[in-house]
Amino acid sequence: MGWQKTFTLSRRSKGCHLVTDEIISHISPGLKDVQVGMLFLFIQHTSAALTINENCDPDVRKDMDMALDKVVPESLNWMHTDEGPDDSVSHTKTSLIGATISMPITQGRLNLGTWQGIYLTEFRHAAHSRRIVATVIS
Amino acid sequence: MGWQKTFTLSRRSKGCHLVTDEIISHISPGLKDVQVGMLFLFIQHTSAALTINENCDPDVRKDMDMALDKVVPESLNWMHTDEGPDDSVSHTKTSLIGATISMPITQGRLNLGTWQGIYLTEFRHAAHSRRIVATVIS
Amino acid sequence: MGWQKTFTLSRRSKGCHLVTDEIISHISPGLKDVQVGMLFLFIQHTSAALTINENCDPDVRKDMDMALDKVVPESLNWMHTDEGPDDSVSHTKTSLIGATISMPITQGRLNLGTWQGIYLTEFRHAAHSRRIVATVIS
Repeated sequence: MGWQKTFTLSRRSKGCHLVTDEIISHISPGLKDVQVGMLFLFIQHTSAALTINENCDPDVRKDMDMALDKVVPESLNWMHTDEGPDDSVSHTKTSLIGATISMPITQGRLNLGTWQGIYLTEFRHAAHSRRIVATVIS
Repeated sequence: MGWQKTFTLSRRSKGCHLVTDEIISHISPGLKDVQVGMLFLFIQHTSAALTINENCDPDVRKDMDMALDKVVPESLNWMHTDEGPDDSVSHTKTSLIGATISMPITQGRLNLGTWQGIYLTEFRHAAHSRRIVATVIS
Repeated sequence: MGWQKTFTLSRRSKGCHLVTDEIISHISPGLKDVQVGMLFLFIQHTSAALTINENCDPDVRKDMDMALDKVVPESLNWMHTDEGPDDSVSHTKTSLIGATISMPITQGRLNLGTWQGIYLTEFRHAAHSRRIVATVIS
């Protein structure tokens, strides 16, 4: 049977944030006895997403936030701006990055590459806490 | 052992369509006895995709369709247009959104956030029926 | 219990490459006794990604590579270019396409649609070998 836990990440404002250590602190009990399995992290929101990317140079996170603003500009002719100009643009970015990341577990540990870490991509300007459902299947 | 079912969504033309209820009607037997698990929905096509986004205001779906047309314009210099000008552009959009969505199951129900629903993003102008393989692993 | 194997894809330079047969050659032992399950392919890198798309016309792969260059241009004002002008731009493309693909397994075979194949999207100009962790859960 799978292992599952829901937890909340610390409040962060717009940007790409390296959250590997914060995630691991919540889920390590679910990994430790798994020889071969998968970890799924699902964000229960539609204006923030999860992704896996470079874990070393903070400039990569700034570059990605800058680039996503160019890929999906806040200046498009959005209809749904009830919560401000960063409303619908954040929803579209969320679908481009995705709500779930899936990673292999091997001998009790996440089996990421040397340069890989977990990013929270927060698309709203104001700081938000984001709820994550972690599920381990083996 | 996992549960699996293949079904076909109703025909829809280009746009982002909220299909949560239609999906649930097909898969609820596979969810009901699962305490902790994952649902995977895989679309067997390359000109339409699945994503999770805002389940309330229909304007979000119109905004996303408009924005994806800006992100990947039909006016680029495409080579593969055998089936019309919406051919290769639809393939690229499919890879940006993705063929599979993965969601947690908790106590017999999909564990989505309050504002989350399932979208079919149909990229072809003409209406198409799309085949989905749903798999539950617990 | 799940099945897992790590392997390396042949070196390829920038472009979208159809790698279905090469992948299958590595993983078929893990599929053959699975009646219902899922295959997860995870790439342990941050400048290349995996996706599912059209398996027939090579022009689709050229179109997608061309389009991703337009979606995320190398000409943006990137800060992280330690390894060349294709450095940070490759990281952003990786997060748009994604590090993991998830596919259903049915009666010992990958249950892809007729026109679906597995792409390696290599974003660096220089040829690279990429390591994949394949996990089967049933």
